[in-house]
Amino acid sequence: MNVPSLHLTQGTATFAQDEPFQLESGSSLSPIDIRFAVYGELNAAGDNVVLVCHALSGSAEAHEWWPELFAPGAVFSSDRWCVVCANILGSCYGSTGPTSVNPATGAPFGDSFPLVTIGDIVRSQALLLDHLGISRLHAVLGASIGGMQALEWAIRFPSRVERCIAIAATPLSSLGLALNHIQRRAIALHPDLGLRLARELAMSTYKSAELFNERHARNPNRSGEPPWASPTGRFDIAGYLDYQGEIFSRRFDPDTYTAITRAMDLWDPARDPGDVVYENIRARTTLVGISSDWLFPASDVRALAQTLTARGVDCSYREIESAHGHDAFLAEPHHANQLLGEILETSEGASRSRPSVGR
Amino acid sequence: MNVPSLHLTQGTATFAQDEPFQLESGSSLSPIDIRFAVYGELNAAGDNVVLVCHALSGSAEAHEWWPELFAPGAVFSSDRWCVVCANILGSCYGSTGPTSVNPATGAPFGDSFPLVTIGDIVRSQALLLDHLGISRLHAVLGASIGGMQALEWAIRFPSRVERCIAIAATPLSSLGLALNHIQRRAIALHPDLGLRLARELAMSTYKSAELFNERHARNPNRSGEPPWASPTGRFDIAGYLDYQGEIFSRRFDPDTYTAITRAMDLWDPARDPGDVVYENIRARTTLVGISSDWLFPASDVRALAQTLTARGVDCSYREIESAHGHDAFLAEPHHANQLLGEILETSEGASRSRPSVGR
Repeated sequence: MNVPSLHLTQGTATFAQDEPFQLESGSSLSPIDIRFAVYGELNAAGDNVVLVCHALSGSAEAHEWWPELFAPGAVFSSDRWCVVCANILGSCYGSTGPTSVNPATGAPFGDSFPLVTIGDIVRSQALLLDHLGISRLHAVLGASIGGMQALEWAIRFPSRVERCIAIAATPLSSLGLALNHIQRRAIALHPDLGLRLARELAMSTYKSAELFNERHARNPNRSGEPPWASPTGRFDIAGYLDYQGEIFSRRFDPDTYTAITRAMDLWDPARDPGDVVYENIRARTTLVGISSDWLFPASDVRALAQTLTARGVDCSYREIESAHGHDAFLAEPHHANQLLGEILETSEGASRSRPSVGR
Repeated sequence: MNVPSLHLTQGTATFAQDEPFQLESGSSLSPIDIRFAVYGELNAAGDNVVLVCHALSGSAEAHEWWPELFAPGAVFSSDRWCVVCANILGSCYGSTGPTSVNPATGAPFGDSFPLVTIGDIVRSQALLLDHLGISRLHAVLGASIGGMQALEWAIRFPSRVERCIAIAATPLSSLGLALNHIQRRAIALHPDLGLRLARELAMSTYKSAELFNERHARNPNRSGEPPWASPTGRFDIAGYLDYQGEIFSRRFDPDTYTAITRAMDLWDPARDPGDVVYENIRARTTLVGISSDWLFPASDVRALAQTLTARGVDCSYREIESAHGHDAFLAEPHHANQLLGEILETSEGASRSRPSVGR
C-alpha cells in the first residue's frame, strides 16, 4: 500500500554506554541501540504521543507493516498524533539483538544473545522516550507480543500511560508454549531450514482452520504437482506455507526468532500468586480478542479483562469478529483502525484518580 | 495393563508373490507381507468377526495399544467375537513398509517406498481376510486413520460389512493437511530428530488446549530447569513433549511416518464432485466425534454423518464428551468400550436391503 506524505523521522539511539543495561535474567548489555520511527510531531502540551509496539517479526517502520493505519483518512493519517514505534530489543531490524556484534568478542551474538523479557523491552523503550523528550503517552498499543508490551507499559509506568490497548494478547497458554517450543526446536535442528519450518507452523497458528478451509481446502497445489501425483506433490495449503517459510527466512534471523519467542513465552506479569502487578495499572485499558484466534483465544483475552477489572483496573473488553485468526490485526486492519480511532478519541475516564487498590 | 488369558493367534501372511499388488498410485509391490493378530475364533456361522483397524502408530497387536478393550468385562473380553487386526501396509510393525527390504535392490525401501493409500491398505486387508476364510464382517471399526479404513471398507466391500464404526475420522481439513506437511518437512530435515519434532507437533494436535492448560499450564519443567533460568530451561509442556518425541523415535521409523501421514492426507473418498462412493455403503454406520478434538473436529464428523445420511446411508452420529482431544479414544478408552459394546449388539437394521441409491 502506498502511504503518501508521511511526516517521518527515523533514527537509532544508543544507550547504556557507560553503565550496562541490566536484563531481568541477570545478564546485561552495553551498549544498546534502539531503532525508532516517529510519525508527526510532539505537540506543545506533550500529550499527543501514541506508542505503537510491534509484534514478533515487525520493525520500527510501522507504516510498512501496518500501512492501512497510515493511509489517507485512517487513524494515524492526521497530524494530530505523534506516533512512535521502536524496534524491540532482541530483534534484527536495527535494535540490539542476536545479529548485533558482541563488543566482548567482536563477533555477532548469535545464539549467545542473553535472554530478554518483555519487561526489558519496555524499559528500553522508556529510555528512548526519555531521549525523545516524551514523558506521557496518550496511548500505548499493540497486538500479539505488541499487546504484551502495551500491558507491560501500563504496569511498569502507570503514571506515563493514559490509554492501553492490547489486541490478542494474554500470557501464552500451554498449547501456545508447546508450539513455540517446537518452532525453536526446528531452528536448533537447522537454522535456515528450521526457521522456514518454524514460520510454517507459526503461520498455521496465526490463521484459523475456517480460513484455511475457505482459501485452500483440500485443493491441489495451484502452482505445482498435486499430492497424489508424486512424493513431492503438495496440497495447496502446503505450497502456501512453503512459500511463506521461504520468504520469511530471507528477511528474518533464526537466533532472533528464538530470542523473541522466548520473551513471548515468559511474559506473565502475575506469575506468582502473590503478584499484584495488575493493580498498578492506571491507564484506561482495552483488551481486544479476535473471535477466530486459537493461539490467543478470545475467551482467554476476555478472562484476562475480567481479572483486570476485578483488580480495580478500568478495563473493557472488545472483540473483533473475523475468520482470519490471530492474524486479523494485520489481515483485516480496518477492525483495528476503527477500534483505535474510537479509543484514542475517548476522554481519559476516571481511572487515573481512583484510589490505590490494596490486596 | 495386564490382559489375562487372551486367545491370541499371531502370524504374517504373504501375498502377491506371483502377481504384484497394484497400488492406486500406479506403482506395485511384490510380495507383500501382512502381519496379523486374531483374538478368539471364527464361529461356525462365520458371523462373529470384528475387524479392528489401527491408527498411525499402532500395530496388529490391538491388545497392546487398546488393552482396556480386552480387559475382563470389556467388549473384546468374551469368546463371542473373533477380533482381527492387521498391521497396515506401509507400517513398520511386520507388514511391508519402508523398513522392508526391496527385492529389487536388496536394501530397505526407505524413502523410495511407493505411495500407498487407505484404499490400498484396505484391499490388502481383504486379501488377509480371504486367506483366513473370513467372508463377512460383523463390524469393522477404528479411530483416526483406523476410522478412515473402516469407512473405506464399507465403501469398497459393501456386501462384506455389516456394521462400520469410525471414530474421529473425516477427510483431513486444510489445517490438518498443513500440520502433517510440517511434520514431514521436519523429517526431511533430519530423520531421527525430525521424527521427534513431528511427534511433538502431532501430540500437540492429539490433545486439547484445555487438557494442556489443566495438566501443564505454564508450570516450569517438573524434572529440570525452569524456562526463565537458562537457555535450555523449559516449561513443563516442553519437557513432556520432548519426552514423547524421544520415546517415539525409539519405536518408530521416519520413512514410515512419512508414508502413513501421506496416506492419511490423501484419504477423501468423494474427492471429485461426481464421486458417488458413499452411496455404496450398505453397513449400519456410526460416526463418532470427540468434543475437544481439533485435528478432526466433532463438527466435521457430524457434517460427514449428515452427508452420508443424505446419500442414503443408515448412518448415525455419536459424540464422546472428553477433554482429551483426538487422543480420547486411547486416553479414555471407557468411552469407546461402551459405545462399541452397544453397537456390536445392535441388530443389523434395514439398510442392507435398501434399494440401491442412484445419483
